[in-house]
Amino acid sequence: MTKTKQIPISGFPEFLPSEQIVFAQVMDIIRDGFERYGFSPIETPAVERKEVLISKGGNEKEIYTLSRLAAEKGEDPNTDLALHFDLTVPLARYVAQHKNMLTFPFRRYQIQKVWRGERAQAGRSREFYQCDIDVIGRNSLSLLTDAEIPSIIYQIFREMKIGPFVIRINNRKILQGYFQSLDIPMTLMTEVMRVIDKLEKIGTEKVVHELMGMGLEEATAQKMMAFLGSLGTELNTDEMLSQLTSMTEINAQFSEGVKELSVVIDGIRALGLPEAFFQIDLRIARGLDYYTGTVYETILVDHPNLGSICSGGRYDELASLFTDDKLPGVGISIGVTRLVQQLMADGLLKVGAATVAPVLVTAMDENRTGDYLRLGTELRNAGIATEVYLEKARLGNQLKYANKKGFKLAIIAGEDEFLRNAVQIKDLVIGEQIECAITDLVQEVQKRL
Amino acid sequence: MTKTKQIPISGFPEFLPSEQIVFAQVMDIIRDGFERYGFSPIETPAVERKEVLISKGGNEKEIYTLSRLAAEKGEDPNTDLALHFDLTVPLARYVAQHKNMLTFPFRRYQIQKVWRGERAQAGRSREFYQCDIDVIGRNSLSLLTDAEIPSIIYQIFREMKIGPFVIRINNRKILQGYFQSLDIPMTLMTEVMRVIDKLEKIGTEKVVHELMGMGLEEATAQKMMAFLGSLGTELNTDEMLSQLTSMTEINAQFSEGVKELSVVIDGIRALGLPEAFFQIDLRIARGLDYYTGTVYETILVDHPNLGSICSGGRYDELASLFTDDKLPGVGISIGVTRLVQQLMADGLLKVGAATVAPVLVTAMDENRTGDYLRLGTELRNAGIATEVYLEKARLGNQLKYANKKGFKLAIIAGEDEFLRNAVQIKDLVIGEQIECAITDLVQEVQKRL
Repeated sequence: MTKTKQIPISGFPEFLPSEQIVFAQVMDIIRDGFERYGFSPIETPAVERKEVLISKGGNEKEIYTLSRLAAEKGEDPNTDLALHFDLTVPLARYVAQHKNMLTFPFRRYQIQKVWRGERAQAGRSREFYQCDIDVIGRNSLSLLTDAEIPSIIYQIFREMKIGPFVIRINNRKILQGYFQSLDIPMTLMTEVMRVIDKLEKIGTEKVVHELMGMGLEEATAQKMMAFLGSLGTELNTDEMLSQLTSMTEINAQFSEGVKELSVVIDGIRALGLPEAFFQIDLRIARGLDYYTGTVYETILVDHPNLGSICSGGRYDELASLFTDDKLPGVGISIGVTRLVQQLMADGLLKVGAATVAPVLVTAMDENRTGDYLRLGTELRNAGIATEVYLEKARLGNQLKYANKKGFKLAIIAGEDEFLRNAVQIKDLVIGEQIECAITDLVQEVQKRL
Repeated sequence: MTKTKQIPISGFPEFLPSEQIVFAQVMDIIRDGFERYGFSPIETPAVERKEVLISKGGNEKEIYTLSRLAAEKGEDPNTDLALHFDLTVPLARYVAQHKNMLTFPFRRYQIQKVWRGERAQAGRSREFYQCDIDVIGRNSLSLLTDAEIPSIIYQIFREMKIGPFVIRINNRKILQGYFQSLDIPMTLMTEVMRVIDKLEKIGTEKVVHELMGMGLEEATAQKMMAFLGSLGTELNTDEMLSQLTSMTEINAQFSEGVKELSVVIDGIRALGLPEAFFQIDLRIARGLDYYTGTVYETILVDHPNLGSICSGGRYDELASLFTDDKLPGVGISIGVTRLVQQLMADGLLKVGAATVAPVLVTAMDENRTGDYLRLGTELRNAGIATEVYLEKARLGNQLKYANKKGFKLAIIAGEDEFLRNAVQIKDLVIGEQIECAITDLVQEVQKRL
């Protein structure tokens, strides 16, 4: 019989159990961090109507549509459905659709797969998990929400224990106000922001070159670089704020941006975020035209090559395509699949056991099967995840199995032990083995985990 | 501007936050139950190659394929990918593909959405979550694994607190052996099993009618009904086993089924599953031809109308389409989306708060913003999920917000309280309000949650 061949599908990552366990731990930290701040979960279907997804425009090539492989007779195999490519368009649709059932400010998190039908590239998947939080106001939304976001980022990445990181903060109104003062036309603004956002990656020279290619004078481009350069990284937060404040006569837009940034920094400090973990960085522009105020990026200090591991910002209008209500919001997104892949590849997240259970009850004596099963039940009833070895195999092979999967403890007992109402607890990490009374088993195991 | 209209997509369920919280709690119970027994997580992509999915045959109408909405120039918008319709075909492909990296017996759980492109019907979704566990052996797999499965089902549904339930157990070899002894041809066996499986739903008369429609003699059909009827529900487990054991001269197939069932029942008892929660039921046949030995269904005693809430069984060959290795397995599946929808509709799962955080810190005095934020940080650092009210609003409106979302406690403090280094803790459930020193806040809140 011909076997169907198994070739990995490029761009659709799949983990081995030991990797999946690490991934699940990261997901738990993220979810717990979101919930700690009172964000509630929602999920939207994997699909939206095509018209909803293309309403943003410009991303048709990314979108996967659904057809039925074999439709009923007389039925169109094509559907009007397509897989979502992010969680923002679905959020906008969700809020517009259910707004009368939601309480505002609406704080939600959403952890789901998204799909991008582009050609697969290194580090780019066609399927990946996004972890998003957003707070959506009705008509208005306090800047304190912008201040709260970095403390959530801080909590999550601190718990991941992946080394020092910095949350870089900017306000697009500052950039936009400054650029306007240089007479850069509004029609170029989105494109200018996109170029500025590449500054750290491609350097001043190339950015100047690209700006001139867009029709900007060299002097203007150089002025922009001087502004972003001097204020880029050399000053600490208070120096930066006082420098920016001294420039607020530039125009109202700039001045508003500086005021917003000050409120946000005050809030961040009140929330207890240590100074080392945040930084004003005027180079953070974010590529999307979507953002209107505060913007964030997060960099691992020792691994800047990984790029931003968590980004987002403030936007004035979430759902103007779907409703006349004014729905301002602020949010961030973690592209967790790529992040975990990179952290595992760089050894910042260690891949270990292929089992979530720390304890294996081995089985030496077939006549004592019932006892082994009972030991497993006893441990589980005490909340200790436990596997009982159920196959027939020599103890040596069972211990090989235990080591291969990465159990921490093996419980071993034969007729001799049972006659003494005892078992052996073997610590598979340090190799030590002790005997303990069955009545003390749970307590002894708990002590060793 | 024309707004894109929001019409729910039939068959793609979407929950409000208060419902999603209940759903997430159920998912956590299921996941925790699986992990307690040492099942490790895996995830497969939402898609498989079309050829993999249709290799089972007969379900083309269910399958959604993917196309790109707008392909690159000269590129085919059609892909060879399609959404998975269950988690068993992906598991078979996964095990075949990664078998050299896996440790056998391979114990995995998988909690993912699946998609079925059929016409939406009441109670049938096109998108839903499945929660599966399977243990896959290499060449062989102990019957003790079959015994362990019901104790996992027991733990999960007991923790859900949805009332009494019974796990019904059978072994298809018993049915097959008995039917063979009545000279029912093997070619009809799958179809006969499918009809028998409807016995409880449509009754003896209709089943006899359908069996006769397949060409069976009325006397044969009546004999089958007598066998299934007398042994169906009237006898307790031991009576049933002894009755079946007395019949083992029927043939080798029947005899083997009875022997397997006895071993499984012994194991179930050793694992501590109370007698009230399991039952041998010969009417459990399972529609799929896939199963070869033990089969399970789980019924809520007070809500039999919900049908089986968790089903599965033993199969001889997981992945024969993909590999020559013999990979027997046993597993179960919970169709959790439909289950939770039904349990919520029937009031067995109560929908409550729209927040996962129990505590809201209200904000009365703008000059004290920093203090409110600090209170929030203090509670969160103690592991208490807390939202700080960040908008400007009168206290009355903040408490309305708190009640609407279902917070348990509101922390209230104005200038007076802060001068006394104190806050008010208002219990929003019982209405009681106490004052406490800020230094005691965490402790007092913990006491009240």
